[in-house]
Formats: sequence, C-alpha cells, structure tokens
Amino acid sequence: MAKRRRPTPHPVPAEPAAGNELLDRRLFLTQSIALLGAGSLATGALPPASAAEPPDTPPWMHAPGAPLSGYGSPAKYESTVTRTNLLSQPGTTGSGGSRTPLEALDGMITPSGLHFERHHSGVPDIDPAKHRLLIHGLVQRPLIFTVDVLLRYPMVSRLYFLECSGNSRPMYNVTPPALTCGQVHGMVSCSEWTGVPLRLLLEEAGADPSAPWLLAEGADSAAMSRSVPMAKAMDDAFLALYQNGERLRPENGYPVRLFLPGYEGNMSVKWLRRLKVAPTPTMTKDETSKYTDLQADGKALMFTFPMEVKSVITRPSSGLTLPGPGLYEVSGLAWSGHGAIKKVEVSADGGQTWAETALSAPVLPKALTRFRMAWKWNGAPTVLKSRATDDTGAVQPTRDALVAAHGINVSYHYNAIQAWQVEANGEVKNVYA
Amino acid sequence: MAKRRRPTPHPVPAEPAAGNELLDRRLFLTQSIALLGAGSLATGALPPASAAEPPDTPPWMHAPGAPLSGYGSPAKYESTVTRTNLLSQPGTTGSGGSRTPLEALDGMITPSGLHFERHHSGVPDIDPAKHRLLIHGLVQRPLIFTVDVLLRYPMVSRLYFLECSGNSRPMYNVTPPALTCGQVHGMVSCSEWTGVPLRLLLEEAGADPSAPWLLAEGADSAAMSRSVPMAKAMDDAFLALYQNGERLRPENGYPVRLFLPGYEGNMSVKWLRRLKVAPTPTMTKDETSKYTDLQADGKALMFTFPMEVKSVITRPSSGLTLPGPGLYEVSGLAWSGHGAIKKVEVSADGGQTWAETALSAPVLPKALTRFRMAWKWNGAPTVLKSRATDDTGAVQPTRDALVAAHGINVSYHYNAIQAWQVEANGEVKNVYA
Repeated sequence: MAKRRRPTPHPVPAEPAAGNELLDRRLFLTQSIALLGAGSLATGALPPASAAEPPDTPPWMHAPGAPLSGYGSPAKYESTVTRTNLLSQPGTTGSGGSRTPLEALDGMITPSGLHFERHHSGVPDIDPAKHRLLIHGLVQRPLIFTVDVLLRYPMVSRLYFLECSGNSRPMYNVTPPALTCGQVHGMVSCSEWTGVPLRLLLEEAGADPSAPWLLAEGADSAAMSRSVPMAKAMDDAFLALYQNGERLRPENGYPVRLFLPGYEGNMSVKWLRRLKVAPTPTMTKDETSKYTDLQADGKALMFTFPMEVKSVITRPSSGLTLPGPGLYEVSGLAWSGHGAIKKVEVSADGGQTWAETALSAPVLPKALTRFRMAWKWNGAPTVLKSRATDDTGAVQPTRDALVAAHGINVSYHYNAIQAWQVEANGEVKNVYA
Repeated sequence: MAKRRRPTPHPVPAEPAAGNELLDRRLFLTQSIALLGAGSLATGALPPASAAEPPDTPPWMHAPGAPLSGYGSPAKYESTVTRTNLLSQPGTTGSGGSRTPLEALDGMITPSGLHFERHHSGVPDIDPAKHRLLIHGLVQRPLIFTVDVLLRYPMVSRLYFLECSGNSRPMYNVTPPALTCGQVHGMVSCSEWTGVPLRLLLEEAGADPSAPWLLAEGADSAAMSRSVPMAKAMDDAFLALYQNGERLRPENGYPVRLFLPGYEGNMSVKWLRRLKVAPTPTMTKDETSKYTDLQADGKALMFTFPMEVKSVITRPSSGLTLPGPGLYEVSGLAWSGHGAIKKVEVSADGGQTWAETALSAPVLPKALTRFRMAWKWNGAPTVLKSRATDDTGAVQPTRDALVAAHGINVSYHYNAIQAWQVEANGEVKNVYA
C-alpha cells in the first residue's frame, strides 16, 4: 500500500505571486485546495439532493455496452476536435497545412491523429515493401535500404516536438487574426519518435567525414528536398519509423522520415527516399523559393534551422469564454529547438508583473513542456501572457521586439509572446498588447 | 547549427558483454557501427546498380497524393496491427479483454487505439453533458460534479503504465501457450494521463481524514466497483480526463476514470460515477468473485494492489522468425508498480550469463521503460530472457520460483521471467525454461 505523503512542512503563501491574483505555483505541487483559500474554487460543484444516496442510474447502465474493438477511436462527443485546414493551395487538396487544436488538448503528447500536417503535394500512398532509401554521393559504398532492413538496426526512442517554421505566421499580420489558439499556433505537435540513428547508416556507407552537407529528398510527388548539415546528421538525427509507439502515420512520412530534433519541421523530410552526401548545400527549390526569412531591408536569411524558444497559453485562449469570475487553471505549452525549457512565467496584468508557473514532468530537451498556473479571475477585463526561457538562457521576445528586428514579411520563425485579452463577459480574444 | 559530438575517448570493448554474443550496451550510447566489428551488420543493404544515380521514381511520385484530413489513421499497410480479443465471455461481445500487439510496437507510448481493453459489460455510450460524479459517505459536504466542472480544476500530467492484474495469465498453464508476445503479455499499455488530483476533490468535500477506504463505482452496466485505500487516494491518485493529449477514449473510461498509478488496472475504475468514503472495504462482487489470488493451499489473497516488477522481450518474440544469422536488436519493455526500473538484464544463453541493457530515456516511475541490446546471432538454437530490477531492489522471479510460491491457480499478478526459444530455422517460440 502506498505511503501517505507528508504535508509540506513550510506552508505555501496563499497571497498572489504576481498581480491580478496569479497564485503561487507551489500550490500545484502541494495539491492542497485549502491553501487556495476558503470558497475560492466556486467551481459549481453541487450538493446532491440526498447526501446519502447515489444518483439514479443513467440509461447507459441499463444494458451492456459496445463490444471490444481492434483499433479504437475518439468518443463521438469529441467529433469537433479535429485538425483545421486553413492553407490548402488553390486547385489542390493535399498541398497546404492543417493545425493541431491545441486549445482542446492537455499534457505534452499530441495524439497522432491530430499531429499537424504540412504537405507540398499531398500524402503519397507508399507500399513499404517497394520503398527504397538510397545513400550516395561522397560515400565509399553507396547503399540502398529496404524498410525491412532499416527495421533491423539498433534504434533510439525520444519525445520531441516538431514545429513548422511557418507556425504562427498569421501573427505577422498588421491586425491580430481572430483565430483560435490552434489555428494560429497549432503547427507544433509532440510525439515519441523511434528510429535508427542516421550516424549508423552514414558510417556504414563510408560517408566522407569532411563533407559538410547532405541532400535529403522525399518520395512525394513534390520530391520535397532540403540541405542538412552533416554535423546535425552525425549528432542527434535519426530515421523515424515509429510515432507514439506504432509505425509512422502516412501524413507523417510512412514508412520512414528523417527527424532532426529542434529544427524547422520541413527539414525532417517525410517519405525519405534519398540522402546524398555533398560538398555544398544543394539550393533546392524548397530552400530558395520558400523557407527563407525575408527581412525588412529586402535581404533574406537562409538556413535558419533551429526553432527558437516559444510558449503559448492554450487555456484560456482566443475563442473560449470564461463562465464567470473564480478560480481558473492557466495552462499552456512551451518549447525550444535549442534545449529544454528552464521556466515559463505568466502575467495576468498585461505584462506588468510575472510569476513562475509549475512545469509538468518530464521536462525534456526539444519536447513540448506543459505549464500550469492557478488564477483567481475577479471579472475585470485583463490580458494574459506567457513568457518562456530555455536552458541556453534565451527568452521569448515581445512581438514589438521581434518585428523591430525582422520586419513583418518574414513568414517564418515567429516566436513572440502571445497576449490573450479577457473581456468582462468572459470572452477571450487575440490582441497585440 | 548543432555541434558535432566528440568521439568517445575510451573505446567500448567490442567483445561480448555476456555469453552467446550479447554486445556491450554502451554500443548503443556511442552509436558507432564500426565498434560492432567489420561486416557484423549483414543487414542486407545493397549497393545500387549505379552508384551515381538515384533509383527510378516510384509510381507514388507521379501524381499528387491524398488530401489533408481532420483526424488521421494508420497506414492501410498496417491494418493487421490490432488488439486481439481472446477473452470475450460466452454470449457477450463487450465483456472480456483485448490485448496490445506489443511485438508490433516500439518506444514506451501505446497509441490510444491499441491500448488494451478489459470490460465487465462492454463500453457504455456516455453523454458527457449528462454524466455526474458523486462524492459522498464520510464527508462533510457531499458533492456532485459535472464533467465541465471537473475540467476547471488544476490538473497534473504523468506518463504511467496500466496493467490488468490478469495480464500474462496463460503463463500459469501447464504447457507454454503458443501465442504471440502481445497475446500473452499485452494487457499492459502506457499513456500520458492528465487529470485532477483526487486529493483536491476529497478535501473540498471534507472527507474524514481518518476514514481508511473509498468505494469507487463505474457507470457501466456492470457497475464495476472496487475498494481503494484512502492513503492511495490522498497520494498520487487522480481523475483522468485526457489520454495521450486528447480526451479519454470510450474504452478507457470516457468521460472520466479513476487512475491509481502502479495499481492493478481494474482499480482505476472507468466511467467513474461515485466515490464513497467508508470505514471499511466494501467487499464488492468484483473484489470477492474475482481479483483475488487463489493460492496452492486453497486460501486467497485479497487487495494485492501494486503490480510487481516485470519485463518482456518484445522482439524477437514468439511467432516472429529471424531471417538468418547476424546482428539483431533485442528490444523489450520493463515496468514496476512500485517505482522506476533500475536495470534490465538480458541473457542469450538461457540464463547462464546476463548483460545489462540500454534503457531509453526518460525512465519514469510506474511507466513502461524500453530496453535495447545488440546481439549477434550465430544461427544456433538458444533461449533469450530478460530480467528487470526496480528501484526498490525487487527483481523479477523465475517462473519456477513464482509457481513454487503461489501455485498455478492464481490467475493474477504473473510477473515471471519470460523465455523465448530461438530455433535453428529462426522461428521463435514460447517455452518454460
């Protein structure tokens, strides 16, 4: 039998940790409702009509339920929780992006069915028995791998986020987009990925260790291609074969994708068919016509690989409505392509004061991290913000600072602090503040 | 750009770490194929017909692929990867169990669609808007919670395994069952669960802190009910609302289930409708007619809550065939209801010698832990075994020791070392050895 955890010897202060009644994050660690103050919950739990008797049995207790199944699906009552497609390109059905509904989810894992999509020519229907991966170029022994052969190699498993470099692009608009949190920021997802360290395969092919670049090419009809630094390939890159325990989903590169932890998502080339060791970047159409960062002065940055430190409050967030004053959990996600999240602060007064949030374990490098904060809303209009710091010391910038540095034509790598306006009627809106 | 990791300064010995060519686990950490020895891979990778040219484009590159979708599904080529139902009770479709296909999965997460099932009267179709949870009994303020109210509370997220106490029951048979790894051991799964600490709700209801028991009752038509120690309820128990990021799946208790980390699965009552604070265990039908451990002397153990330390090699495993001598990854899962896995050892010579495996990070308490080992199979028949040790020092027993201690009528809590026979033709079979 489990031992009872001892009460915390030093009571946590019940006074706010920052302005507008943001409560101390240690209240989450001690998990004591009493410390939140008498009557502070006001959550609407009701005393039953008769305290002694259980409620009447509901209709679903009157007959046996549904049978066992081979592969399960979400409840029909959750059918509105889907990816949203805002970006299909004219005349196509498979080119564009769909976004994870972040405001409907909790925890750090994204269910694979809701992992964001970004395709350049739809999802190819690849027979794994016929798929081949070629490693060639500056190698001693060009090699072709079948999927069955790749599945024989030693593997690694890691929890990593994947973020499209174009995530949050609507926030470069001159006026704040009236979209949900997921529609704005949902081109980020987090899965457990399992696969073969790329270093093993490059060594087996006898890749020239002085060659600084790889070309990675996908087997979609766009032949999506990117140049990858050899240093990254020999560090933590791997060929992913499994996602959240099962084989990759088609829209995530089945049967095999490249995975470059922390780098912009398009470089983790899906449906991988070719790796060519090269003396220079290949300057593919995908890295010249797009995935470059146009600056205010007309110059464009190329090869801006890692995704910067970022966070967003997923609840409350734009499009949701608070039912009335009282206690709320402010919950969100933080991540950095440079390492682990060190802290996330939240402000309930538009950024005047900040308090540190509780982070849900495990806090892992290059993975989504869930943060949580208790907040007593007094019913007055206010602005909520979150600000992440990673373990390299990098801090999420304000939107003003990001725009001052890079302009508004960048399209990619938006990582500024998100502000959500809470109206007096409880409605939450996206604002620049 | 990522820094290149420096080569390990102290080369790892390429000699075997234990009998029959189990290789040193550090080979996984350095990830250097050269250290495995020249020609040791023999994985079947082929040099291309022309080293300079990529292979012909496959048919799926000749036209755009499938469109974006709202909620994704596994590839059609993986349609055989399903739960297997071996246990439906006569005349029912929803009473029994289905098992996770462990041999087809990798990593530590179980996709929610493949999480094992164990139902006592099928899966109820519960309208979350109409579901109610009552907390009553020895409390100051009986309370009824709606699901919307529960969703307002502060939450925790944790990665935990869930194991049916009847998992591996066929291994009590007199002869080893000719079943796959998942069919024998697949009533264990691992998810990220998010929900409300039970302690918060019990405190709010003013539960009598000296009352030692709770009754937990489900809203299925079996009204599945178990007695839960108050100490566990006040420790790490919670009411789970989310599984792997999204709301619970119907077969895992939608819209809300109890979750008792490390305890036998049936106590984490699904479709939770009632918690009654009580002075004694309730002796429900479910804890008297079953979920007791009948010993060889005719007495039965009750309330054997935590699942003991356990491991199983998932690949190679029963029903799979090794295509020929050469390098293999021996991969499996380990877990303990008492804490974290400290080490997993593997033997390739039937238990004469053992070597420690590499554990995939993160290694978390009461979660599945993936272990991996490189093995050069010489083609001779042999027996593979794994043996887990948890951080309380508990070691997985042999089958002989388990049977000597508890007999073969127990049905529950089987956690002995699993032996897989590898035949000369590569076939793998379940054996008692």
